[in-house]
Amino acid sequence: MVNQPAIYLDHAATSWPKAPGVGKVMLEMIEGQVGSSGRGNHGMALVAARKLFRTRSLLAKLFHISNPNDIVFTSNTTEALNLAIKGWLKPGDHVIATMVEHNSVRRPLEFLRRTIGIEVDYIPVSPLGEMEMGLLRSSFRSNTALVVCSHSSNLLGSIAPVRKMSQLAHEYGAVMLLDAAQTAGNYPIDVEELGVDLLAFPGHKGLLGPQGTGGLYISSKIDLVPLLHGGTGSQSEELEQPAVRPDRYEAGTANTVGIAGLGEGVKYILEQGPESIYRHEWELTQRLMVGLSEIPGLTMLGPEIGKDRTGIVSFVIADRDASEVAFLLDKDYGIAVRAGYHCTPLGHMTAGTMKGGAVRASIGYNTVVDDVDALVLAIKRITESY
Amino acid sequence: MVNQPAIYLDHAATSWPKAPGVGKVMLEMIEGQVGSSGRGNHGMALVAARKLFRTRSLLAKLFHISNPNDIVFTSNTTEALNLAIKGWLKPGDHVIATMVEHNSVRRPLEFLRRTIGIEVDYIPVSPLGEMEMGLLRSSFRSNTALVVCSHSSNLLGSIAPVRKMSQLAHEYGAVMLLDAAQTAGNYPIDVEELGVDLLAFPGHKGLLGPQGTGGLYISSKIDLVPLLHGGTGSQSEELEQPAVRPDRYEAGTANTVGIAGLGEGVKYILEQGPESIYRHEWELTQRLMVGLSEIPGLTMLGPEIGKDRTGIVSFVIADRDASEVAFLLDKDYGIAVRAGYHCTPLGHMTAGTMKGGAVRASIGYNTVVDDVDALVLAIKRITESY
Repeated sequence: MVNQPAIYLDHAATSWPKAPGVGKVMLEMIEGQVGSSGRGNHGMALVAARKLFRTRSLLAKLFHISNPNDIVFTSNTTEALNLAIKGWLKPGDHVIATMVEHNSVRRPLEFLRRTIGIEVDYIPVSPLGEMEMGLLRSSFRSNTALVVCSHSSNLLGSIAPVRKMSQLAHEYGAVMLLDAAQTAGNYPIDVEELGVDLLAFPGHKGLLGPQGTGGLYISSKIDLVPLLHGGTGSQSEELEQPAVRPDRYEAGTANTVGIAGLGEGVKYILEQGPESIYRHEWELTQRLMVGLSEIPGLTMLGPEIGKDRTGIVSFVIADRDASEVAFLLDKDYGIAVRAGYHCTPLGHMTAGTMKGGAVRASIGYNTVVDDVDALVLAIKRITESY
Repeated sequence: MVNQPAIYLDHAATSWPKAPGVGKVMLEMIEGQVGSSGRGNHGMALVAARKLFRTRSLLAKLFHISNPNDIVFTSNTTEALNLAIKGWLKPGDHVIATMVEHNSVRRPLEFLRRTIGIEVDYIPVSPLGEMEMGLLRSSFRSNTALVVCSHSSNLLGSIAPVRKMSQLAHEYGAVMLLDAAQTAGNYPIDVEELGVDLLAFPGHKGLLGPQGTGGLYISSKIDLVPLLHGGTGSQSEELEQPAVRPDRYEAGTANTVGIAGLGEGVKYILEQGPESIYRHEWELTQRLMVGLSEIPGLTMLGPEIGKDRTGIVSFVIADRDASEVAFLLDKDYGIAVRAGYHCTPLGHMTAGTMKGGAVRASIGYNTVVDDVDALVLAIKRITESY
């Protein structure tokens, strides 16, 4: 086995440890009873199908989605975002995104701009994570087909004004896509209340499931061009993908083992409640921010103390390379964080951290006060020793 | 737990049980040490990166691929085939495929035919699984860009003349894509010797790994348009996917847990040797075919007794619905098989089984003589009781 950090503060990359029961059900599925859903006329194939439906139903409950079959499984958020963006946009469409989008939004958009010809506006976000709503409103055009937005910036931790954005989107006849990479499981999400038409989410972050899982909610009003074409175990004789959901968007053998594991993660989240997880993480971010605010030369990014934010606290230290700081935290203090560009170059431009990147500590459902205090102390020592 | 069939003969859908050690390493990864490869500056993220590289290296050894980074992981064969087909073909290209392609090849091709305008010829294959090479040769055109072929038909069990096909493909300046859904792990594959430029393979069938895994080998001579655009943990500041492999084709968080499991499967295959697994399965198919040949009204599909074939033996029984036969096998005899259309409608047209589909028994690495004999006896009883 490997050097495990004593203190894990990299939950925004992947949560750790996973929810109780995740490993157990995966082991059961792999050793006991895994058929392939829709690919066999026997009990084992039915077990696989039932496990998939169970996880789908739990996710529907969590996100307030009325029909579980409007949720399709993907291997990660990136695939979900690619399906949503490439499956919805047509040549000549206009898209509104923000300056803090992850590369999993920005790169598909830029790919479509180069290849089929779409137009994209990235709405500026202040270093505090605030969006100028007037600018947002004035960006809409007659051909605006999509508004896409990171629910919580993976660099700033700020929370986007989703309801206002979706209201505007719908006013202008556009569709609202929410990237919930940093909020699914650790922040309340109600697709009806938020007016979200497409919701992309990871399985392995706030939902406490395994890597290799994720999904996309697709409102029943929306038909996307599938990203994958292939066998579904249904309507084999047709040349086209079946119209029925979720088959239409789930070609190929499902990750039954991983999705069964995800089910345990979602079950745990439902038991705890995303509100209470959010509250727990928020209180610790406040403590962390107060601690870090006393360190000379350290600048935090994102919302000020007292404001809403997810468990992400990024910071830069004057004249120090972020990667070096992260390396020292790991080596000398056993604290796992992430440093660098976090796949969001525009976010860094926004935050003014293009040169050396930022150190990102991210708090999770199981983080405790001592973890936060240890990080503050370690950063103090690192800055003093320079 | 669930009713497990006493006899599992559905290996062509998914292998069961998986190789020794697959469940164990997955549990270790999920409970002990899973970071996210390329997304953290700490030991756990490095462990994840190393596990991915280990599996890649083992796969490279198995398929005789010189650079492991020419293998990219996908969630299944379907995604690998979609990446290969959609990433390679351009408007006006001509494709040669066969009548026994799976829907994971046929549907992407038909999608491109409808949307960007490509031309496709499906070369007929006889019910014995034989291809007329003269017809293949005469199908080439100046705009033929791709030859794609199922290495072993998932309905007939026949083995395609890959070397001849790739020679022709290269003669005409086309690229050879092999769908190894039914051969990876249980039949020798040497991409150099076979002249395969693109090799799509599942992790959860002959390689004895978990569902949710698979991959595509991409010859270093070939550049594909990525199917997914997004973060890779490298070159975050670029608008385009990085050119470096495997990052170029692996956007988003990897299925580290599943891929670590797959590594144990491939390790087992390398220890046993795909030749010896093939030989074992072939001997049992021969025994099964001899047994089934004595049953009145039963017609087998695919190569005759004595010829090369993978572990797949499909058959129809006069006046009996294939699904009903499979249901009785499961319920009364505890034997798991698959019935229906097997996602290959053209294959069924070829085999003349469009009406009721076929029963498919598929033998695996762990099938024993008693399993085969039990199936023959059960089919005898089912046909007699009618």
